Amino acid sequence: MVFQPKLDHNSESPLYRQVFEQIAAQIRSGHLARGERLPATRELAGSLGLNRTTVSAAYEMLETEGLISGQVGRGSFVTASPTAPPSSPAEGVNWNGLLERNENFMSGPGGGRGREVISFAVSRPSRDLFPLDEFRATCATVLARADLADILQLGSPSGYEPLRRYLLEEARRQHVASPGDDLLITNGCQQALDLLGRVLLRPGDTVAVEDPLYTGLKNLLTGMGAQLCGIPVGAEGMDPAHLERVLERERPRFLVVTSNFQNPTGASLPLPARRALLDAARRFGVPVIENDAYGELRYSGEVLPSLKQLDESGGTVLLRSFSKVSFPGLRVGWALGPKPLIDRLRNAKEAADLHSDQLSQAVLLEFAESGRLEAHRTIMRKAGAERLAATLDACAKYLPPGTRWTCPEGGMNVWVRLPEPLDAGELLARAQRQGVAYVPGRYFAVSRLEPGALRLSFAGLTPDEIRTGLAILGRTIGAEWENAVPSYEPSPAMV
Amino acid sequence: MVFQPKLDHNSESPLYRQVFEQIAAQIRSGHLARGERLPATRELAGSLGLNRTTVSAAYEMLETEGLISGQVGRGSFVTASPTAPPSSPAEGVNWNGLLERNENFMSGPGGGRGREVISFAVSRPSRDLFPLDEFRATCATVLARADLADILQLGSPSGYEPLRRYLLEEARRQHVASPGDDLLITNGCQQALDLLGRVLLRPGDTVAVEDPLYTGLKNLLTGMGAQLCGIPVGAEGMDPAHLERVLERERPRFLVVTSNFQNPTGASLPLPARRALLDAARRFGVPVIENDAYGELRYSGEVLPSLKQLDESGGTVLLRSFSKVSFPGLRVGWALGPKPLIDRLRNAKEAADLHSDQLSQAVLLEFAESGRLEAHRTIMRKAGAERLAATLDACAKYLPPGTRWTCPEGGMNVWVRLPEPLDAGELLARAQRQGVAYVPGRYFAVSRLEPGALRLSFAGLTPDEIRTGLAILGRTIGAEWENAVPSYEPSPAMV
Repeated sequence: MVFQPKLDHNSESPLYRQVFEQIAAQIRSGHLARGERLPATRELAGSLGLNRTTVSAAYEMLETEGLISGQVGRGSFVTASPTAPPSSPAEGVNWNGLLERNENFMSGPGGGRGREVISFAVSRPSRDLFPLDEFRATCATVLARADLADILQLGSPSGYEPLRRYLLEEARRQHVASPGDDLLITNGCQQALDLLGRVLLRPGDTVAVEDPLYTGLKNLLTGMGAQLCGIPVGAEGMDPAHLERVLERERPRFLVVTSNFQNPTGASLPLPARRALLDAARRFGVPVIENDAYGELRYSGEVLPSLKQLDESGGTVLLRSFSKVSFPGLRVGWALGPKPLIDRLRNAKEAADLHSDQLSQAVLLEFAESGRLEAHRTIMRKAGAERLAATLDACAKYLPPGTRWTCPEGGMNVWVRLPEPLDAGELLARAQRQGVAYVPGRYFAVSRLEPGALRLSFAGLTPDEIRTGLAILGRTIGAEWENAVPSYEPSPAMV
Repeated sequence: MVFQPKLDHNSESPLYRQVFEQIAAQIRSGHLARGERLPATRELAGSLGLNRTTVSAAYEMLETEGLISGQVGRGSFVTASPTAPPSSPAEGVNWNGLLERNENFMSGPGGGRGREVISFAVSRPSRDLFPLDEFRATCATVLARADLADILQLGSPSGYEPLRRYLLEEARRQHVASPGDDLLITNGCQQALDLLGRVLLRPGDTVAVEDPLYTGLKNLLTGMGAQLCGIPVGAEGMDPAHLERVLERERPRFLVVTSNFQNPTGASLPLPARRALLDAARRFGVPVIENDAYGELRYSGEVLPSLKQLDESGGTVLLRSFSKVSFPGLRVGWALGPKPLIDRLRNAKEAADLHSDQLSQAVLLEFAESGRLEAHRTIMRKAGAERLAATLDACAKYLPPGTRWTCPEGGMNVWVRLPEPLDAGELLARAQRQGVAYVPGRYFAVSRLEPGALRLSFAGLTPDEIRTGLAILGRTIGAEWENAVPSYEPSPAMV
């Protein structure tokens, strides 16, 4: 790096902040490229004539912003690409930065599979569980088929027809689809949410959502100019009474709700809450979008009927996907709902990208029809149960007293609340240097900021990695907590 | 079909229109499902006590609207699914209806490969040319790779990194990419256009486009609330002088232009027009989106530098795709442009669907790196040249005097103008009954309606089919032209 920050010792801005701001500007403008190594703190401090802790503080701020990533024994590397500022900088999530940072952790240069940081940062399955031989056999069957040319030819916006029919028949068999329903194939649940926004939303419309909320949905809706009205998620999901007040007062354009194993909290709606939610939505005429990406990954407890299944009024759209239970790199999900809405979504889908990739649709259909998907689901549920149990056990064993966490019955995420006055965002850079990463709760906040909250995504890690990671995290939290200055300072007597 | 139209013999609306409207309403509401057979005209006429020509006229209107499709000797079938009305009914294109109709033609129930209608309606390659063995070998290589699990894992919004790097290096090698450029993988050119609209457009913005215009772009932009300002496309593409006046007067948010083999006209911009266009765009500060889906399919003439390559100001984004030259069912294209714009597009891409399907990206990269893509390109160019020559020869041989058509040097489309007063939209139902289909020009019109124009997409047909189809079309046009009532009626003398 030839760049050298220029410091103004007479400025009101502290030196560590000047260093931070100048390096951040270099990264954002592209002058410092992704992957470039920053000088060691000792080296930069020496060349600038600064105390090393000043430079360390600047680097910590850069890490917290997702601009650089420190790797034990190797130094700090630029992880962000230059970006335009987010539309609302105060609230904006540097999700790219997060994802990229995580990728660095998983497969850093020269690192191979020997990861140096145990990352709880991404909600995705473990690549070690992908049934590669079964996948290869599935592809071989599809490639040998006489109708391969149809798969390679331009397709229909509705989706690859054999897959669409299969999913619709499955939904009918499970009594999830009503006679008036239709089904559209999408590029995962994310695109279904996008298409729903396109056909239902106008800028300024209010949308009722969970708080905390999956960042992909938060960014999507705010990007469309929606006003988010967050309904707090407790251990049992959205509180129906709170929801009812919001629906009555705000009359939102629609409500998005995760019935099973919500991201980020892991919470699920019990049956009475499902009925109460639907009752309130029907009474105030608010359409319900049921985002059920994780529903197949139940490790304990009773399988509950989906909102779509319980709703006889035709006011619910159900979103599901193959991504979480099989291969996230294959982008195939679907929306099931009343035919007139699905027709509108199909038109929006055609405008967006003509249709979804047909090779993956054909492969996933064969994976399902051959029985391999069901066999893989069983493996995924067993592995998920072990990983969730390891997470909950390790939380109990290693996290300091005063820390609380959710106890989901499935999915990929546990929500942790640190004892006050700890800030999970401030703690992150330190945790990463110790060798563990997570996503601070503020990235998921709609209107209720929980500085002490963080998300642990456990599905991508082995039980051993989970235990090691949580032991490190527990030590880091403990050390931080002991050093924490109480935010309460006795004020002098008024005289 | 149990449905029976209820007629009002005292109504001002003619009986054929009443029949048309009631059946159309049944289809649009879903009471008559796609694939359902309508009663024969003779049968319905008998049961309603009507003249058979009255029912035939109603069926013709239904066909023209894309709601039903007649198949010689088999009757008429519902081809459209119930849809919400398009946002601007007067201008809206029932593209779904068209595509679905075409699919019926290509593989109607029981029809197999023995097609009854020769369809010039869809701009796509012939499935007979797909190199299935090469595709299988490519997939086998990808599936055998040690990094298969990475392909199946959650990916980056930027695209599958090895493919992104390959395309960027290719573009640099060809001097198409500048040092400040970046590249984003998209689901074909259609998604790149969608993402550009999302990051650049606000409702009410003006966009300068070609007139006639690819329907997928027309629907996309009008759906986003853009005002389209059409620039007439002649034999040599947009007229630069006309374009300059539009840019000066309207200051559009951006300009979308097809440099090579435009859909629907087949026109390409000569080199001086490219320079003049860029000069005007730069002078008025208007960004240029170069939509180059067909550029690889040049059959004659000199390869011209792309606008992107000629533009040293950094004001052009280039959109390309694997779809037209290889497998349209695999949805992989890309946008190449200035890094700050690509960064914004990547954020929009992540909100839209996280990332493109990675299996197809990996397969297409291997198809390209193995040299199979280049070999296939050669085959596609040879086949395209034969099919284009067959089309132009057959136009000269079979179309009646007074008919004109474009003479493209590549691509998949020829634009035909019928002699006045013929209306290509009105002629379509008759042509279909004779066994040939096309898309009437009005579907592509921005502001300049050419009722006599139609698009012939020749790439999906063999030279023999092209000759047979154009012989039928020539006879149909000839018969229609002889019967045509002059629109000019001598008016009585003023007395």
